[in-house]
Formats: sequence, C-alpha cells, structure tokens
Amino acid sequence: MKLLEDKIRSEGIVVNDNILKVDSFINHQVDPVLMMEIGKALAEHFKDKGVTKVATIESSGIAPALTCAMSLGVPMVILKKQPSKTLNSDLYQTIVTSYTKGTSYELTISSKYVNENDHVLIVDDFLANGEAATGALRLIRKAHATIAGIGIVIEKSFQPGHDKLAAQGIDVYALARIKKMDKDYIEFMED
Amino acid sequence: MKLLEDKIRSEGIVVNDNILKVDSFINHQVDPVLMMEIGKALAEHFKDKGVTKVATIESSGIAPALTCAMSLGVPMVILKKQPSKTLNSDLYQTIVTSYTKGTSYELTISSKYVNENDHVLIVDDFLANGEAATGALRLIRKAHATIAGIGIVIEKSFQPGHDKLAAQGIDVYALARIKKMDKDYIEFMED
Repeated sequence: MKLLEDKIRSEGIVVNDNILKVDSFINHQVDPVLMMEIGKALAEHFKDKGVTKVATIESSGIAPALTCAMSLGVPMVILKKQPSKTLNSDLYQTIVTSYTKGTSYELTISSKYVNENDHVLIVDDFLANGEAATGALRLIRKAHATIAGIGIVIEKSFQPGHDKLAAQGIDVYALARIKKMDKDYIEFMED
Repeated sequence: MKLLEDKIRSEGIVVNDNILKVDSFINHQVDPVLMMEIGKALAEHFKDKGVTKVATIESSGIAPALTCAMSLGVPMVILKKQPSKTLNSDLYQTIVTSYTKGTSYELTISSKYVNENDHVLIVDDFLANGEAATGALRLIRKAHATIAGIGIVIEKSFQPGHDKLAAQGIDVYALARIKKMDKDYIEFMED
C-alpha cells in the first residue's frame, strides 16, 4: 500500500534494525484518514472469504480492526489482555508469551462473540515473531471458530512470524512488508 | 441518542445497580455501524469548539474516539496506560487511582502529540466516578494544552463524575445518561 509505505518512510523512526516507531500515525497518535484507507485495503483483500467477525488484540490493533470491520460490514471483537471482572462465564483463555519482551499475558474471549458459526479475520498493527497472532489463532480455535486469514498493517518480513503462520496454510496479508531497515533506510518487499 | 438508548435497553445487561455490561456492542464486541453514529453524534456536539485533537484512554475508548476524530477531521491520540519501551523522551505521566476498583495505573502521553497548540476533546466509553477522565484532564494540562470538552458514550448519571467535571466549567456531553438502573429496568435522563 503506497500511501502507507510513504508515511512509514516520512514519519517512521527506525530506532535500530529491529524497532520501528510509528507513534505519529498508528500507535500513539492515530491518523483517522489513513486508518480508514488501511481498513478498506484489508477488507478489499479478504472481501470474498466469508468473514463473519474481525478480531484483534487490544489495544493498538483496535483502530485498523474497526475500520476493516466497517468496510466488511461485520462486527469487530476485541481479544482482551486480561479477564475483565464484568465478563464472567463462558470465557476462553490462553497465555501469550513474548520471548522478545520477556513478558506474558492472558488473552480472553467470550464464547458469546466468537463461536462455531464464525469465520474470523484477525487484524493487528504489527507482525514480527508472530507470538501475538499465534495466541489469537489458538484462542479463536478454542472458541470453535475457523480462521479466514490474518491482516496486518506493518510486517517486519525479516522476522519469522509471516512464514510460521503462512506455513499453516493461513492467508497472511500485510499492507507494508519491510524487508530490511536501518537508521536511515527502509526497504520494502516488492509486490 | 435514541439508537444507543434502544441498544442499551435491548442488549445491555444490568448486573447490579452499579454495573452495566455492554459487551455485545461497545466493550468486547463492537458494532461498527453504531460506533460510526456515536462518533458523528459526539462530533456534531463539539464541531464548533476548535478541537485540534481527540484524546482517549486505552482501550475501550479507542473505537468511539476514532470515529469522532474521523468526523471532526482531526488526529486521535491514545493516552497509554503504561510507559511503552519504544516511547522514550518528552513524556508526561500521571497516576490514576480507581478507588472503586482498588487499582492504579500510570497514564502517559508524548509531548510530540499533545502540546501548547492543542485544544483537546477527551472521549471515553463510560463516565461514572470520573477518575479516568480526571486523570486524562490532568495529563493534558501537564502537556500545556486546553480542554475543549469531554464526550462520553454512556454516563452513569447517578454517580458523581459528571457533576465533578461540570463544576470545573467543562462541557461534559454524554450520548446516553442513565438516571437509575436495576435488574430489569433502565431509566435515562430526559434531554
């Protein structure tokens, strides 16, 4: 997606060859116009896949998941990072461990909102090692639903997440795929 | 907002006279069509107030804040519940304590995204005791910005948040104002 790649080139800050900050338009400040275009582009790719719900992990994935769900005309479901006190029975949970960050958290979903009638598109802002996406997949399968695909805003294609997920036969579609990056330099994958 | 009040009546679950669950369309599953209408209605109220940014606290406020920012044509800023590792210098922080929940968290904003040029509309999903909104206000003032108002999806008007904030001269506008609620009964404030 050219608009997004241009924005990453002009406003993204490469902290080191592993960390890209996009705080000015995706994570901390959000550009609603760009976010709507992102949602449309993800929806366009998955529009014929019979998606019944768009799921995302709180909280950076909420904005692109919402605009994608709007474009597809289906509900969005937020996978919660901790069991809410007011969500009670019929919960599915899974532990997600981030080896890179050295943290783990519990991901929760209510069986009311994802169940055996659903074909779910997972949307998230970043894909790197695929730990969060793998946790989301596991949780959605626990809830007896199937996976329509994974839609990503920015993928660090030099990290193993994409290949690990694609190897399971999942359609992993990212709007910006970074092949290599360095302090003053970002190279995207060719389409 | 009639559409929202009807949805609260038909799908909201009153757990006790203090807790209302709206997980099926606001907090856990999100209805994108209703969320767009919510954003438009909040924007309509504040459209002549010179709003430069819409700010919200992660994560349930992100959806209504994004649709409101879209309608106003301004960026959205997410006040982070913890200092991100990739957000480094020039941060403002404040501690928000929830006496009802017995928890506290650190709220963070970067001076890059809210500063002395900004007139900020705070948007959140719920207003009850006003603890989160008061923390957001404090943080935005720390960042040298002024407050255009507070836009809320659902207000529990029988709790003190609204009056506490309005007493400071702030325009607090809620789309659904619950006067009283009970297991089988929700009464809204008259307009």
